[in-house]
Amino acid sequence: MTIKNSTIFHVLLRHGTGRRTGRCRAVDGIKYCLAMCAMLTGFGAWAEGPLVLQSDFGVKDSAVASMKGVAASISSDLAIHDLTHEVPAFNIWEASLRLAQAAEYWPAGTVFVSVVDPGVGTVRKSVVLKTKSGHFFVSPDNGSLTAVAELLGIEAVREIDEAVNRLANSERSYTFHGRDVYAYTGARLAADVITFEEVGRELPAEVLTIDYQKPSYNEGRIVGNIEILDPQYGNIWTNIDRKTFRQLGVAPGQLVHVKITDGDKDVLKIRLPFFNTFGGVAVGEPLLYLNSLNDVALALNQGNFSATHDIQSGPSWKIEIVK
Amino acid sequence: MTIKNSTIFHVLLRHGTGRRTGRCRAVDGIKYCLAMCAMLTGFGAWAEGPLVLQSDFGVKDSAVASMKGVAASISSDLAIHDLTHEVPAFNIWEASLRLAQAAEYWPAGTVFVSVVDPGVGTVRKSVVLKTKSGHFFVSPDNGSLTAVAELLGIEAVREIDEAVNRLANSERSYTFHGRDVYAYTGARLAADVITFEEVGRELPAEVLTIDYQKPSYNEGRIVGNIEILDPQYGNIWTNIDRKTFRQLGVAPGQLVHVKITDGDKDVLKIRLPFFNTFGGVAVGEPLLYLNSLNDVALALNQGNFSATHDIQSGPSWKIEIVK
Amino acid sequence: MTIKNSTIFHVLLRHGTGRRTGRCRAVDGIKYCLAMCAMLTGFGAWAEGPLVLQSDFGVKDSAVASMKGVAASISSDLAIHDLTHEVPAFNIWEASLRLAQAAEYWPAGTVFVSVVDPGVGTVRKSVVLKTKSGHFFVSPDNGSLTAVAELLGIEAVREIDEAVNRLANSERSYTFHGRDVYAYTGARLAADVITFEEVGRELPAEVLTIDYQKPSYNEGRIVGNIEILDPQYGNIWTNIDRKTFRQLGVAPGQLVHVKITDGDKDVLKIRLPFFNTFGGVAVGEPLLYLNSLNDVALALNQGNFSATHDIQSGPSWKIEIVK
Repeated sequence: MTIKNSTIFHVLLRHGTGRRTGRCRAVDGIKYCLAMCAMLTGFGAWAEGPLVLQSDFGVKDSAVASMKGVAASISSDLAIHDLTHEVPAFNIWEASLRLAQAAEYWPAGTVFVSVVDPGVGTVRKSVVLKTKSGHFFVSPDNGSLTAVAELLGIEAVREIDEAVNRLANSERSYTFHGRDVYAYTGARLAADVITFEEVGRELPAEVLTIDYQKPSYNEGRIVGNIEILDPQYGNIWTNIDRKTFRQLGVAPGQLVHVKITDGDKDVLKIRLPFFNTFGGVAVGEPLLYLNSLNDVALALNQGNFSATHDIQSGPSWKIEIVK
Repeated sequence: MTIKNSTIFHVLLRHGTGRRTGRCRAVDGIKYCLAMCAMLTGFGAWAEGPLVLQSDFGVKDSAVASMKGVAASISSDLAIHDLTHEVPAFNIWEASLRLAQAAEYWPAGTVFVSVVDPGVGTVRKSVVLKTKSGHFFVSPDNGSLTAVAELLGIEAVREIDEAVNRLANSERSYTFHGRDVYAYTGARLAADVITFEEVGRELPAEVLTIDYQKPSYNEGRIVGNIEILDPQYGNIWTNIDRKTFRQLGVAPGQLVHVKITDGDKDVLKIRLPFFNTFGGVAVGEPLLYLNSLNDVALALNQGNFSATHDIQSGPSWKIEIVK
Repeated sequence: MTIKNSTIFHVLLRHGTGRRTGRCRAVDGIKYCLAMCAMLTGFGAWAEGPLVLQSDFGVKDSAVASMKGVAASISSDLAIHDLTHEVPAFNIWEASLRLAQAAEYWPAGTVFVSVVDPGVGTVRKSVVLKTKSGHFFVSPDNGSLTAVAELLGIEAVREIDEAVNRLANSERSYTFHGRDVYAYTGARLAADVITFEEVGRELPAEVLTIDYQKPSYNEGRIVGNIEILDPQYGNIWTNIDRKTFRQLGVAPGQLVHVKITDGDKDVLKIRLPFFNTFGGVAVGEPLLYLNSLNDVALALNQGNFSATHDIQSGPSWKIEIVK
């Protein structure tokens, strides 16, 4: 789809010489030049998909900066962004959800690198998932890709061939795949140094997934999963989408009964109103609302629902809602 | 002022064809090509003002990354930076000051997006402020623009017309204006997809402001406000500028009396020396100095003044200084 | 080495005019155009080394954003990245190590700006170190450059001449060298506005260094320094490289005796196995492994070694390993 700058540059210089024989060739040259300009600039800028990095490394040490250095070494034009590096250590579930929350807002062609990898150095595949939406996800195949695979659909999965897709001279380093394999491969893919096909052999179109309660409505009762906490404000985000919620037929201002369980344990029963905005309730009061992903969420207006009621998130957390 | 790449590209292709009729036209073509190259590269790069994001979202979840994805989708050439996303939740006062501290160091044309918005979803205007310095500020008009309006002067204010300046298919999402309206509009403005005029209708040249103690000198006594804490080191930053402070006639090494109040409450009376540098006092000792903004500040050399004396900041905090 | 866009642009416009006299000149024009295109695009993008910022400022206030604004004002094309801004306040030792850990993964020509500066405003030189690897480091010469000087080798050191390399109108600000001198000089160097020679006068090829235990093997016993903690996971990173460790002749799975001291104080004696991967031991169990820098490190699998055993890092911390 795209052509690398260095290639174009050589082509351009080659064709730029020896065109001394006539007007028409000069005119051809102009057209050539115009086309080259276009490729070098418009197309060139267009070509390199952004690279978006996620990890549980934090930003206190040099790990993320080393990944970015590897990427910047591959192409100085590559736009490198962070999704977050504050995924709780080893939390594959949260890694999976953060990718799904952010991905669809990025343009097709964006390459996401996600390194939450408790099994680093053990047997787990390093893969690149291409979704039907045209996004790429470079990650260990350890469940991190559960939510994007569901949300965006699997187009193809390839296993990273570390014989070719690995930072030179890093063969004896056992523990920083994030830099030597994932950032390296992601940057080369984003910068069009390699194609998706050159990542490695194609695998069956599936990824390892984590099991959890899907959202569903049945006889006046909705069940779903507490996907994640909004860690800044302590809001509780569920996987119950607007459409499922609507089946309950609740109008703004109306009260609902909510029950939250963690595995077999009942954690909270509460009655609270549905509102479209936090302004619907007084400061400190609870509400059910639809969050920025259009999913059901619970909050205390200007307070912390999660801390107040000791609620966490993850595959074992369920929520039930009835009128 | 600037021309979008796609436009140029089409113009260029149109003119690049059919120029086969003579030497002069060929020569024209060359000139044309040269000008086009210049526009496509020099001008192109020059055109897109950086986009600088501020919020109280933190960087632990996908909120900031979603805003950046929306911006990167509008233009892959856009330089996207962070001011900070660690504004304390709902703290409009601090949002206002952070903008004012950073803005003048950025080039004219920079577009700042600030999303600290306790009133999201309720009645408050979404605006773009253009300052006399040529900077743009996209924000709810809730006091966040107090300090930049004072410091840089109001050139014009426009209300964001959400009928046109809103991410497609986001109409039913109630709570993430930061992504769907503010980041979207800011990125389009920075990338010259829309002009300032296309933001929406012009409002009176004013923004909602927060009331606080202005710095003043009177009969050997200076009063001012404790604007903000330097959260990393616990230094106390006031709004008393160098010029006002100079009226007190204090030489480096000389002692001053400082009194700090929070509303009606006396919080601290202390005597400390003025020095130009922290090295003027021993480790752990207090000093009054002029900070990087050339304003009066208080610190403990390699210590935490704020924590030691339990001082906070905000509109209710006052400081008095006498010799 | 590189040519600034503005210069090229003027040359191009000058030569682009008056070429109306013949076919050959037209053809020359085409070649000229092609070359210019190449320079404006390929070369242009290639020219500006990335700028990488490190400090102990944190990202809660406007300090880092002001530095970036200064850099973006110098060149809108400059790629600006963060190493980390979470170096513990005034910790020169850690600043030194973070630079060394990250630098070699960045391309030659990268300009690092490191501002950990307890002595700001007192007598300490502001320098730019050019290493034999072709990287540049802008920093106070206070020990921050210890590790990169050792690792990458000193090519030359220059003192920043603040008479010319200082943000305009900042002369009366005493305390933010990070923005006014370091970020400003680093950005101008990265954007090729100044050459390395234009930084200021050449100093002797040395930097101020911090003393610590070098790694060594002697009669079945290895000694070294605890360089740093991996703050996210609490792993302990030493300066004992793979080659030194190999002299001990330990196979994966084999146990070693480790002793850790802080100055004169014995802190820990422990027996633990060497493994290539964390998966070699059960969850919660300790191991010795080679980290992503190929140095000896200690960890608890999915636990926090440092917190569990109350180990810190720095020049006073030593480690001994015997079979």
